[in-house]
Amino acid sequence: MANLFSFLIPKEKKFFPMFEKASGNVVMIAKTLVQMVNTNEPEKRKAILREIEKLEHIGDSVAHEIFIELGTTFITPFDREDIHALTSALDDVADFIHGSAKRMEMYKLPLPDPTITRLAELLEHAAEELNTAVIGLENLKNADIIKAACVRINSIENHADDIFDSAIARLFEEKENAVEILKNKEVLSVLETATDKCEDAANVLEAIIVKNV
Amino acid sequence: MANLFSFLIPKEKKFFPMFEKASGNVVMIAKTLVQMVNTNEPEKRKAILREIEKLEHIGDSVAHEIFIELGTTFITPFDREDIHALTSALDDVADFIHGSAKRMEMYKLPLPDPTITRLAELLEHAAEELNTAVIGLENLKNADIIKAACVRINSIENHADDIFDSAIARLFEEKENAVEILKNKEVLSVLETATDKCEDAANVLEAIIVKNV
Amino acid sequence: MANLFSFLIPKEKKFFPMFEKASGNVVMIAKTLVQMVNTNEPEKRKAILREIEKLEHIGDSVAHEIFIELGTTFITPFDREDIHALTSALDDVADFIHGSAKRMEMYKLPLPDPTITRLAELLEHAAEELNTAVIGLENLKNADIIKAACVRINSIENHADDIFDSAIARLFEEKENAVEILKNKEVLSVLETATDKCEDAANVLEAIIVKNV
Repeated sequence: MANLFSFLIPKEKKFFPMFEKASGNVVMIAKTLVQMVNTNEPEKRKAILREIEKLEHIGDSVAHEIFIELGTTFITPFDREDIHALTSALDDVADFIHGSAKRMEMYKLPLPDPTITRLAELLEHAAEELNTAVIGLENLKNADIIKAACVRINSIENHADDIFDSAIARLFEEKENAVEILKNKEVLSVLETATDKCEDAANVLEAIIVKNV
Repeated sequence: MANLFSFLIPKEKKFFPMFEKASGNVVMIAKTLVQMVNTNEPEKRKAILREIEKLEHIGDSVAHEIFIELGTTFITPFDREDIHALTSALDDVADFIHGSAKRMEMYKLPLPDPTITRLAELLEHAAEELNTAVIGLENLKNADIIKAACVRINSIENHADDIFDSAIARLFEEKENAVEILKNKEVLSVLETATDKCEDAANVLEAIIVKNV
Repeated sequence: MANLFSFLIPKEKKFFPMFEKASGNVVMIAKTLVQMVNTNEPEKRKAILREIEKLEHIGDSVAHEIFIELGTTFITPFDREDIHALTSALDDVADFIHGSAKRMEMYKLPLPDPTITRLAELLEHAAEELNTAVIGLENLKNADIIKAACVRINSIENHADDIFDSAIARLFEEKENAVEILKNKEVLSVLETATDKCEDAANVLEAIIVKNV
């Protein structure tokens, strides 16, 4: 709900560039993941993984920066809880993308694998939608743009769920070696959780819109 | 804590029938699950799964309706956050019940299985208690009824936890085929998560009572 | 942010001893876990597990006590939501420690195992840091002490994550028997979740500091 006297409150603007840094970084890490899952040359893959690690650390720093700012800023553009939740969700997306990449490497999964590629691409799309929505936050006239991006993120997440579910059923049906099943299941499930975290971020964005428009 | 001037605030009443639609739908989907896990005729089972899918979609629509209402209603009977959390938790219960049913079918699990049946029955009981508590929400004189239902949901969840834990230990002990173990573990764990979500809903209900009585 | 008129509000002091009871109990249960994972005599191990169960029940009672108090106290020293979240997180740590111990016993895991011992020790350290932070809560002059403990808990959690990830990779590489892998993976993952819950508790503590200093 719009605060009736909101025109009196000087909104703190410095959060927006930080949010955009966080969501831009999520786009970068998702794009780098897509690159990694399409690379079957081991040395190149390791180099891309190091890139993903670097991006994950950048994400951590941005999140930390936002939390510090939150601790020292009296007036915030949205509820403090929502700023916290949005920042955490964006950080989680980067963490889970990194987690999936790390596991692919540690388990020496043969790549490219069509399901993994598909999930990585969906993550890239979800990250771009998240970025659109986050950029929109600066002006609440963008409420419809933000809402539309959130709807698309929800549908991407549903799609990822279906792909994940059938992939697991297929693993159980086709693979004989239980260790192979376990490795693949673990990587797929971390990828799927990354899309869940995109949805969590979208839910916070929707909640911000609900409360502020 | 009761707002001292709460008698001045016209509480929005239109949320209650929507909550009751959501919790009634959770009862329906849980009952349909019990029916499914007791059916070993493949075609009949598929038909019941389609019924569960339909109920899950109904649950999604009701949740969506509540979120839209929340975005356009100035005065809400409880904290907006609690309405959001309760709606999400009820939606999650339906989602996980659907997820378990879908997996039983995809993995071609032989049914009936005593542990699966037991967990489905516990879910049905928890859903009924949730429904009782949600119906009670309309009048805060029902605080004790709501609290008692929440206590029973907590105890159902504990019971489901124990059944799940021993079932996994038994799987490890008795089954030789790791793929069989994995399939069963996956389905049991989705069922167990559904009972966790009932507990989440009960926790929101308890929090609403704490703040409003 | 400090409430400008906070000097007018008589803060409810009776929550602090209850928080300390909860965090002290988490230290006890973590210490008892370390003892258990270093014991290979079956009868002695069973006795220690019973001790852990007892401590878990004590944790449940303390959490219940705090929730009841929350329901009957008008003025609370922090946001009601934060008291609820802190209490739940501390209770979760104890629950997952108990869950890991119970599984070690049910699956008849051979102990001591170096990874399990390491994770149990990290949990003990995290529990001690949590306890320090919780004891600090009574006086907001301790903000820096609390923050420092939370930073250390975050780093312990990161460390536990790394240990967990490499342990799983090693299981996949070294063990032939999928059932052995599954049992170990399950126990390690419950231990790792217990460290996540320590981080959740630390996040609530940091949020309390952000809002109240």
